[in-house]
Amino acid sequence: TSTNKTSQSTYKSNAGVDFVIIFKFPTNQPDVTREQLEAKTTKALESLTTKLSKVGLRFQIRPGKERGVLLVLVGCPSNLLYQALKRERIRDFLLGVRVDDIEEDGKSRSINMSDVTDSERLRLVYDLITSPETEGGASISPDLDECVDSIMPLHDENFDKPEYYSNGSSHGRRNGCLIKTTSTKFETSLIAYYFAFLQNYFVWLSVPSVLGAFVYMTHTNTLTIGFSVFMLVWAVVYLEMWKRKEKELAVMWGVRNCSKYEKRRAEYGGDGTIKDEVTGEELPFVAPWKTIVRRILAIPGVALGAVFLSSIVGFVFFLQLFLHEYYAGPFAQILHYAPTIGYVLFIPTMTNIYNKWVKILNDWEMHKTDASWESNYTKKIFIANFLVGYLSLFITGWVYIPFGDHVLPYLSHYNISHDHKKVDFLRLRDQLVYFVVTGQVVGFATEMIVPYIMQKAMPKAQELKEKVTKGNTESSFPEDQLGTPEMSGPEAAFMKRVYKQVGLEEYNIYTDYVEMVIQFGYVSMFSTVWPLTALCCMINNWVELRSDALKICKYTRRPIPLRAEGAGPWIGNMETLVWLSSITMASFAYLFHPSTNIHSPYTPILTLLAIMVSEHLYVLLRILIQTAIEIIPSWSDVVVKKEDYKLKKVWLDRLAST
Amino acid sequence: TSTNKTSQSTYKSNAGVDFVIIFKFPTNQPDVTREQLEAKTTKALESLTTKLSKVGLRFQIRPGKERGVLLVLVGCPSNLLYQALKRERIRDFLLGVRVDDIEEDGKSRSINMSDVTDSERLRLVYDLITSPETEGGASISPDLDECVDSIMPLHDENFDKPEYYSNGSSHGRRNGCLIKTTSTKFETSLIAYYFAFLQNYFVWLSVPSVLGAFVYMTHTNTLTIGFSVFMLVWAVVYLEMWKRKEKELAVMWGVRNCSKYEKRRAEYGGDGTIKDEVTGEELPFVAPWKTIVRRILAIPGVALGAVFLSSIVGFVFFLQLFLHEYYAGPFAQILHYAPTIGYVLFIPTMTNIYNKWVKILNDWEMHKTDASWESNYTKKIFIANFLVGYLSLFITGWVYIPFGDHVLPYLSHYNISHDHKKVDFLRLRDQLVYFVVTGQVVGFATEMIVPYIMQKAMPKAQELKEKVTKGNTESSFPEDQLGTPEMSGPEAAFMKRVYKQVGLEEYNIYTDYVEMVIQFGYVSMFSTVWPLTALCCMINNWVELRSDALKICKYTRRPIPLRAEGAGPWIGNMETLVWLSSITMASFAYLFHPSTNIHSPYTPILTLLAIMVSEHLYVLLRILIQTAIEIIPSWSDVVVKKEDYKLKKVWLDRLAST
Repeated sequence: TSTNKTSQSTYKSNAGVDFVIIFKFPTNQPDVTREQLEAKTTKALESLTTKLSKVGLRFQIRPGKERGVLLVLVGCPSNLLYQALKRERIRDFLLGVRVDDIEEDGKSRSINMSDVTDSERLRLVYDLITSPETEGGASISPDLDECVDSIMPLHDENFDKPEYYSNGSSHGRRNGCLIKTTSTKFETSLIAYYFAFLQNYFVWLSVPSVLGAFVYMTHTNTLTIGFSVFMLVWAVVYLEMWKRKEKELAVMWGVRNCSKYEKRRAEYGGDGTIKDEVTGEELPFVAPWKTIVRRILAIPGVALGAVFLSSIVGFVFFLQLFLHEYYAGPFAQILHYAPTIGYVLFIPTMTNIYNKWVKILNDWEMHKTDASWESNYTKKIFIANFLVGYLSLFITGWVYIPFGDHVLPYLSHYNISHDHKKVDFLRLRDQLVYFVVTGQVVGFATEMIVPYIMQKAMPKAQELKEKVTKGNTESSFPEDQLGTPEMSGPEAAFMKRVYKQVGLEEYNIYTDYVEMVIQFGYVSMFSTVWPLTALCCMINNWVELRSDALKICKYTRRPIPLRAEGAGPWIGNMETLVWLSSITMASFAYLFHPSTNIHSPYTPILTLLAIMVSEHLYVLLRILIQTAIEIIPSWSDVVVKKEDYKLKKVWLDRLAST
Repeated sequence: TSTNKTSQSTYKSNAGVDFVIIFKFPTNQPDVTREQLEAKTTKALESLTTKLSKVGLRFQIRPGKERGVLLVLVGCPSNLLYQALKRERIRDFLLGVRVDDIEEDGKSRSINMSDVTDSERLRLVYDLITSPETEGGASISPDLDECVDSIMPLHDENFDKPEYYSNGSSHGRRNGCLIKTTSTKFETSLIAYYFAFLQNYFVWLSVPSVLGAFVYMTHTNTLTIGFSVFMLVWAVVYLEMWKRKEKELAVMWGVRNCSKYEKRRAEYGGDGTIKDEVTGEELPFVAPWKTIVRRILAIPGVALGAVFLSSIVGFVFFLQLFLHEYYAGPFAQILHYAPTIGYVLFIPTMTNIYNKWVKILNDWEMHKTDASWESNYTKKIFIANFLVGYLSLFITGWVYIPFGDHVLPYLSHYNISHDHKKVDFLRLRDQLVYFVVTGQVVGFATEMIVPYIMQKAMPKAQELKEKVTKGNTESSFPEDQLGTPEMSGPEAAFMKRVYKQVGLEEYNIYTDYVEMVIQFGYVSMFSTVWPLTALCCMINNWVELRSDALKICKYTRRPIPLRAEGAGPWIGNMETLVWLSSITMASFAYLFHPSTNIHSPYTPILTLLAIMVSEHLYVLLRILIQTAIEIIPSWSDVVVKKEDYKLKKVWLDRLAST
């Protein structure tokens, strides 16, 4: 079979290496002698190799391209893989992930090793490397082992074609035989769901795109309440339909129920161990009250980070406002560009600081499973992106436009010259257009063009650097002791590929999801301000789909194909955005309606009432739409029922015969 | 074992009769000759008996106590029961209801018929009688068979002691060995959950009772915002804890996952049949769009009913108001009592009309399963009880107190004499006290005292009636053809018991749940108006628990012990009430605060803002409390995990051996 061939070919093309563990050790530290450093490094390396051999994984150590880096090439012998696979198949059957392993004679079907897909193999080996020792793994993790920098699989050169990502799942839907091919690549992973989501979202965007273009042409300079209501309905229906689609994909990809298996985090140390009531194992234990207290204490921590980011974004916003609208002093020409530079360079840096801070908080919260850790981390990251993406729009719509004119007297009082004009909602539109158009162009550049240039330019810079440094260092470090093996043709070529991939960035699924979710927010919350938002996003996504597929194959390390049952916590974030849409739509519809006197003292209170009505409308709409969609039968339900029935029949027959 | 003995004893004490089908036929109809009537009745009876024998159930036909009534006594032979039990056990295993049937050798444990509990037996036989023919049942239902009036099980005289109901589940919790006894009675049914709920709710009420009494003593004539917020938190926490408790009870009673089995309604006819994709059976089919359209069209139908009821309640309220507060004309003394009579007699009658109307609508909505039918019917019934229970309080709080004084000028204008005084929130308190105290006393009387008197008085009235009618009728109806068999001692005693039970009302679980849920509404929505509400309700519930247990044993027919996994849709209704609490609490706290000028033109809008803040607070609170409660481990989770682990081990061992 083709799958068989694929799996074999990858395995061969990567010389039996499933994963590369990047081992980084310090070559120079103040106050520590070279001998101490050496001893420490040797100890860490030994601990790592002991753990690997204990589990039964094969490994080889190679020097890295840079100083202070070793590459541990890890391979999995087929009998070990067979055991892991068998364990997983049984677990899958018990959780209801697969039901086809039951034969009429009550014995499980024997496992055909050539049926194992590439991603299945990688997932199982990754599990072996990272699981806690109590669960039969080597318990290796960058968070636990000081010198382990990261654990990465190798790209499959014969197979890593962007088309598989960008077209895979849609073909899969149309043509059953392509599903296998697709699933070989990223079977079941969060990444597969990302591409499926992107395609689905792209198609759904066509409705508000067409209607938005029509509204834009007919109501050039006003807001239409009808369009606002339509967008709210669209967003609610779309989300419900996507949740349904997710379930269908889980059935199609054979990952239904896989989230029921909660893998314990190796990082979850606990305050001590307790004998598990169920299995009798010694497991790490933390008192529930401690977890609750830590979660509660983390909230002000996150709030602090959010306030910090908000003030940065607010500062940049008001600086921009001041420089553009009020300031007419010296250097005005040059100072105009300062805020844009702030957006492109300053804010992303601050966001990274926030992200690191919440990661520390999230680790401190003591999550037992990866699923729980991830869901909470996603929420925290989302807050940052939310603030950067929307805060200045909220300030413009809710503060600057209604209250901006109050500043003028003060400016005159302080004798600041200004060329400020009266502002209306078109100011908000300009701001939105900047975010939707400029923001997406900048995003494309940082995602695609910068890595492309880096990839071209870096090797040359590296060479130059090597020439300079190699001359004046001598060392007795492990890398030197191992020596640079004499590599023959194919091995040299293989190591060259390994070095190239080690030099790439790790693939970050969060960035891609964040981008799409924030974009969805522009469409659902602000379409009424600029009806072309959806159309613009649709064009962007056509490019995005292709560039993301290219990025994943060429500009990042290969992602680890962990199973997922859906886009997970991101959908929750999108639901929050739809709720906020009911707030923004209602407030804009009231504030910017031609009949509203925006400067009346009653405006704030009436806006709040409009928001209140709209929120209740949203809740009602959601209940109605959910109820209606539930009634429509889904093919995935039929498939699930069929499987259940099959199982039921086997059991009935067996019981009848005894 | 004691269970064994129990099951056997019931079976014997009821002479092998599991169910009594009450067959009612017309004895007199205009425009139809006696022969035609007779032929029709004979045909209906034949159809019924054919259906019963087809399934393999035994039956005997006995004349009823009244004219035009036959009693079909149905018994189930043990081999048929064995088959049904086996089918259910397999289904239970597949759905995950029980996992202990798996033995290490892969064969299912043989079923010991003496382990079958009384309620299990009744449930299975009921299933055989009512299931659609395609699912192996007799397809008998009062909705389908013209002459079938109802299907009722017989009480177990040796065992029907109220203590089992009112103490059962709490003992069960403390003392493992009592669970079996309890479950014999009403294992798993909605009724078991009702009593468990009542006990749990009673305990939880102690917190607001004590605090409420304290608040009542310290803040005699004002509202306390602190108490309002506390009650909101209490209600949210209580509901979340009850949901958790429900799951624990499901594990304890062995009904976890039982709601996954969706029994098709025999009444679900469909527009035609379609071959099921999964099982290949011919099943009734209705196009989804048709279901959706019917559900949508039912909404205005329910709304119409609600408007009708609202106007009735409103009319009685304003009549009462007018007569009590403004009217001082002739017959004032007597007319004062008119509204109370309205509440006690007129409104319940109108509610019954509403209930019948929504039952028609609910049937028309075409529900495929009993669960879906019931959940929708519960919601519709709840609307009626909501209006009757709270509407006049809402009118008092939100309309009469703020705007009541506007009526005075009109009264003077029309020269109507009145002794109206200025009203404040104490008027609302009076109204509430009336509902909480008087309402519950009246409820107790109609539930307990009236049936008691009826039971004493009815037999005598019946005898009298029989004497009068028996003299002047002659008939060739089936009852007469069967003749009155010569009954010996035990049989006569048995038939006397049957006649007595047939004469009782059917037990209506809705009434009991409605009462408690509406009471919960008083506590959660209005405690701030009268802090003693919780205390009063607690006293009432102490009586309620005991009187309901007595009622179920003595004054109603035996309920059918259908399995349930929780109190189901009622919890949803309670959640709606908690949400409304956030509205009432905030509005009362603002409206009746000493610093608020209730007659200011801004009051309505500021009240709305207070409501808005409070609603958001409620949503936030709920999320926080849910998250915190999730972290605390529950013993039911451990039990479930243990079972899963056991199953896993058996499978692993079996696979290892092949």
